[in-house]
Amino acid sequence: MHRIPVGVLGASGYAGRELCAIIARHPGMALAFATANERRGERARLGGAEVRFVAHDDAPLTSAELVFSALPHGASATWVERVRNVGARVVDLSSDLRPGNGAAPVPYGLTEVTRQQLPDASVVANPGCYPTAILMALLPLVRRGLVAPGATIIANAASGVTGAGLSPRTDLLFGEVTEDFKAYSVGNTHRHLAEMRSVLAANGGDADLIFTPHLLPVARGILATITVPLTRELEDPLAPWREDFAGEPFVEIDAEPPTLRDVVRRNVVRISARHAAGVRQPTLLVLSAIDNLVKGAAGQAVQNANVVLGINEPTGLPT
Amino acid sequence: MHRIPVGVLGASGYAGRELCAIIARHPGMALAFATANERRGERARLGGAEVRFVAHDDAPLTSAELVFSALPHGASATWVERVRNVGARVVDLSSDLRPGNGAAPVPYGLTEVTRQQLPDASVVANPGCYPTAILMALLPLVRRGLVAPGATIIANAASGVTGAGLSPRTDLLFGEVTEDFKAYSVGNTHRHLAEMRSVLAANGGDADLIFTPHLLPVARGILATITVPLTRELEDPLAPWREDFAGEPFVEIDAEPPTLRDVVRRNVVRISARHAAGVRQPTLLVLSAIDNLVKGAAGQAVQNANVVLGINEPTGLPT
Amino acid sequence: MHRIPVGVLGASGYAGRELCAIIARHPGMALAFATANERRGERARLGGAEVRFVAHDDAPLTSAELVFSALPHGASATWVERVRNVGARVVDLSSDLRPGNGAAPVPYGLTEVTRQQLPDASVVANPGCYPTAILMALLPLVRRGLVAPGATIIANAASGVTGAGLSPRTDLLFGEVTEDFKAYSVGNTHRHLAEMRSVLAANGGDADLIFTPHLLPVARGILATITVPLTRELEDPLAPWREDFAGEPFVEIDAEPPTLRDVVRRNVVRISARHAAGVRQPTLLVLSAIDNLVKGAAGQAVQNANVVLGINEPTGLPT
Amino acid sequence: MHRIPVGVLGASGYAGRELCAIIARHPGMALAFATANERRGERARLGGAEVRFVAHDDAPLTSAELVFSALPHGASATWVERVRNVGARVVDLSSDLRPGNGAAPVPYGLTEVTRQQLPDASVVANPGCYPTAILMALLPLVRRGLVAPGATIIANAASGVTGAGLSPRTDLLFGEVTEDFKAYSVGNTHRHLAEMRSVLAANGGDADLIFTPHLLPVARGILATITVPLTRELEDPLAPWREDFAGEPFVEIDAEPPTLRDVVRRNVVRISARHAAGVRQPTLLVLSAIDNLVKGAAGQAVQNANVVLGINEPTGLPT
Repeated sequence: MHRIPVGVLGASGYAGRELCAIIARHPGMALAFATANERRGERARLGGAEVRFVAHDDAPLTSAELVFSALPHGASATWVERVRNVGARVVDLSSDLRPGNGAAPVPYGLTEVTRQQLPDASVVANPGCYPTAILMALLPLVRRGLVAPGATIIANAASGVTGAGLSPRTDLLFGEVTEDFKAYSVGNTHRHLAEMRSVLAANGGDADLIFTPHLLPVARGILATITVPLTRELEDPLAPWREDFAGEPFVEIDAEPPTLRDVVRRNVVRISARHAAGVRQPTLLVLSAIDNLVKGAAGQAVQNANVVLGINEPTGLPT
Repeated sequence: MHRIPVGVLGASGYAGRELCAIIARHPGMALAFATANERRGERARLGGAEVRFVAHDDAPLTSAELVFSALPHGASATWVERVRNVGARVVDLSSDLRPGNGAAPVPYGLTEVTRQQLPDASVVANPGCYPTAILMALLPLVRRGLVAPGATIIANAASGVTGAGLSPRTDLLFGEVTEDFKAYSVGNTHRHLAEMRSVLAANGGDADLIFTPHLLPVARGILATITVPLTRELEDPLAPWREDFAGEPFVEIDAEPPTLRDVVRRNVVRISARHAAGVRQPTLLVLSAIDNLVKGAAGQAVQNANVVLGINEPTGLPT
Repeated sequence: MHRIPVGVLGASGYAGRELCAIIARHPGMALAFATANERRGERARLGGAEVRFVAHDDAPLTSAELVFSALPHGASATWVERVRNVGARVVDLSSDLRPGNGAAPVPYGLTEVTRQQLPDASVVANPGCYPTAILMALLPLVRRGLVAPGATIIANAASGVTGAGLSPRTDLLFGEVTEDFKAYSVGNTHRHLAEMRSVLAANGGDADLIFTPHLLPVARGILATITVPLTRELEDPLAPWREDFAGEPFVEIDAEPPTLRDVVRRNVVRISARHAAGVRQPTLLVLSAIDNLVKGAAGQAVQNANVVLGINEPTGLPT
Repeated sequence: MHRIPVGVLGASGYAGRELCAIIARHPGMALAFATANERRGERARLGGAEVRFVAHDDAPLTSAELVFSALPHGASATWVERVRNVGARVVDLSSDLRPGNGAAPVPYGLTEVTRQQLPDASVVANPGCYPTAILMALLPLVRRGLVAPGATIIANAASGVTGAGLSPRTDLLFGEVTEDFKAYSVGNTHRHLAEMRSVLAANGGDADLIFTPHLLPVARGILATITVPLTRELEDPLAPWREDFAGEPFVEIDAEPPTLRDVVRRNVVRISARHAAGVRQPTLLVLSAIDNLVKGAAGQAVQNANVVLGINEPTGLPT
């Protein structure tokens, strides 16, 4: 198989390392460069291959047909522009170009939902980890008009600490996180809300959304527990996802609620749904689980890159 | 200080051990006996004191003025009756006599809420761990009529594994729980629901309740994240709790969301509340944290016993 | 690639599940059957494939060219005999046929050391997890006569809890293991000692061995910290391993001490060695790390099966 | 009970916070000040009391009869001198004044061993965490001349991450430490070696010592597994500790090997010893466990302060 040269900007963080590891095992991609300013000149073993980090400014941008940017939010957009100017495609894992963030709209890479927009894209905004888990759980209901008019959807979610990045923060030390659990961005203030609201609205959603993320004492994984007031009880509560995602290799629908263990190190979203018993308002409990670094970041980015580059979509992705 | 003799039925589980440990450090109680059928004859060091387990049938019931029953649900009620028959008081940690469970009503030991019913009680039904966290969070809103009529309250909660007891279950092995997180009793089917609904209704609650518990990879602690549709926005979202629990030594109200770390090994419930931004229906996010084994079980049981026995309420309780 | 049919006896434990997962991804093997008496009739998703468990007695032994036995110690030998009687090869993961255990000697599958004995073998005794980590660390020194005569080698090792199996033991519950660490089999009494001593003696070892295992609050991985009194200081402390294991794809020698993270989910042993400073007796500190379920069990078993079956040795093994 | 005013320099780290928490519950001490330059002006809840941090330079040194310094190694000695100059006593938790570090000798606070030197001390060097666990395990053997002449003692130890302090290091993030285990300072290079060697030599020790520390994925606790070549087998392997530490409230000798769980949050060292079976050289395996923040730091510091100040030694210490 021909290996298409790709580059990674911001390769030393959790998402960047995961990208390098997936690329190392991808039969259709070759890593042209990996940048990391603070670790320039260092080597790391990622996915069974040795990677040597260079400074961002030393990246041979023109050597790659496609560049993944795992640079921090705010810093990424400028580099996306540079890469486009030399004619390479970009998959941007930052939030800079995602819907709801005020930037000029670019294709959004929630692959199973938006894949027809991707083949010609020069840049793809890769979804956030929480939005991936929550939108895949909500869109089949929203698009069918099943959400009760004027309702409030409650999305509680919990993420492993790699979601907070590989930065030296005291509150993320092992001694602080072990045996703890807490909510953050309480009051509906998380920066992923605009992205979720924007995509829901574009799909006909009218409901309000309350999103409360939590920090779990685990390395990887997101579990979202979502409560959706419905217009009516569903005969088969799994039918909307079974229909929308029939044949999708990276979407698993099951009557049993998903656990982190079902999804970590895999490029899948796993979804379950049950009606809440004993309440007057018909309400569905939808549970959705992903690995925040794989389907929630690097895996979906490679899935999008496969579509952009004309590679068979599941190629190189861990299942 | 005079030490009143007390006994513990079912002393080898997590709640029973915690009871023995608290009693060992309590200046007003002396442990008269501790039973554990399967570990009869064994010794354990609990709270700095050595405890020797006897069979339930060998417990000198008449030697105690008050007996704590930490026997399993279903097995406890019979023993409560036996103890009452010999004239001792009982604090029952099982669900057998709790409201909503169909038994003849006995005083319910949510101490800060029901303490005036306790001094003359021959038996007290000690609340469940989830109900303690959730009812303390909801009652100030319910009693003020602040919950929107016909609304659905969404209570998501996550508990450490000691909540599932000290039984040899494969799914609770370290190798299965570490790095995992999952929901259980999905669909509003948890056995604590009847207890919560019954107490809410008795306090004027009309709202429906959807409760989804989760299993955390931690030993101790419960965090409840509760979404409450309100009749109106509150000027001070903490005011209902500040008023209802003013001066309570075991209730902490704080603008910062509580974490497990704030409450483990302490007999407190810690509560915070914030309005959800950006939604049409005024909605309050209430967070509530307890140690499931202390304020959610053994600690509150001793708090109730203190009231029953006329001991100063905070005596012997870890803060 | 032609897929050779293989079977797994005892497929529902940790090692058995890992075997099924590796076989599912192995391009040269096909799973003919997987047995699990207590879970007969159930299905499990292992390595991306669905496995259906049958009772041991219902296993179509003749359908497989090679059978892996992951049955418990004591129960395995009988089944090994049954499989041999129908003409299939066996890799036995139990200790029943390992050196030092009193059984008639069969080839020992410490692949990098004994691979020339394997191609014609009808049965291979797969090494224990601790012996794999420790023997790979010691044999290069022993075979060179570098261990001081009459010396005592001290092997401390720590293992993740999957080493203790998937049995419902109270002492292995998450609530008991988290935040704990302890030694076991203290006093040089572990059942793996005979295996290690026997192999060391067969390779010319004269030194005594003191082995103290510990239980780590992690799921997977073994780290052995071994102290070896030497006849003399080595110019290059890594040279013995670099020479003996040159070109081996599953042995990694590095100046940096190995961590569990370096080896989990991989079929490698990673070894480092440094002289102890400031002591009169020349002494080498050798550190060795493996994944107890992969290189310490299922991975090495498949590596051995590859050799037995004439498949290219690294095929299908995770690196 | 009269409360003697004490101060804490460096109160925001793990040891400093533990000191404040113990002092808050100590019936004979009152916290006069707590310093933390980077968190000056902030408040923290420690041991049930609220503490307000001031800058080091703003500490009212003269208001305290005794000052604990939990300042970093290197920074502490200067402050010890300042405190002595205003006439207050000091317990220094840093390594600056410990034996073997080249400073002018001051009394060493391994309380059970050196308490007769403490009552008149103006400054006490509080032992390191590893030295506390290891010296308490070795001194009874060394002082009896039971260690084989010219022998090498092997001390492997593993510590929870709070031993590395509350500093924002990437390698100490939860995502890096969970499910990992590793050795560090491999090659007998740890900075605690000089302290241990110096104390052993002062007690007649001739043996060499090889010390290899490990980082555990737990918050608290140290377990040391020590191998000691003996001059002869002991009839009762626990006798040396039972004799030396008879009646000591903070030393627990038991035939069962200690676990972290036995000692965390308690000011005790727990020791066990067994002969190694099957070796020619009589060898004792000694296991020793402490909480690195309590008996290994803040607890022992308060124990020493109690002796210095004439308070009954066990006062205020968690057992």
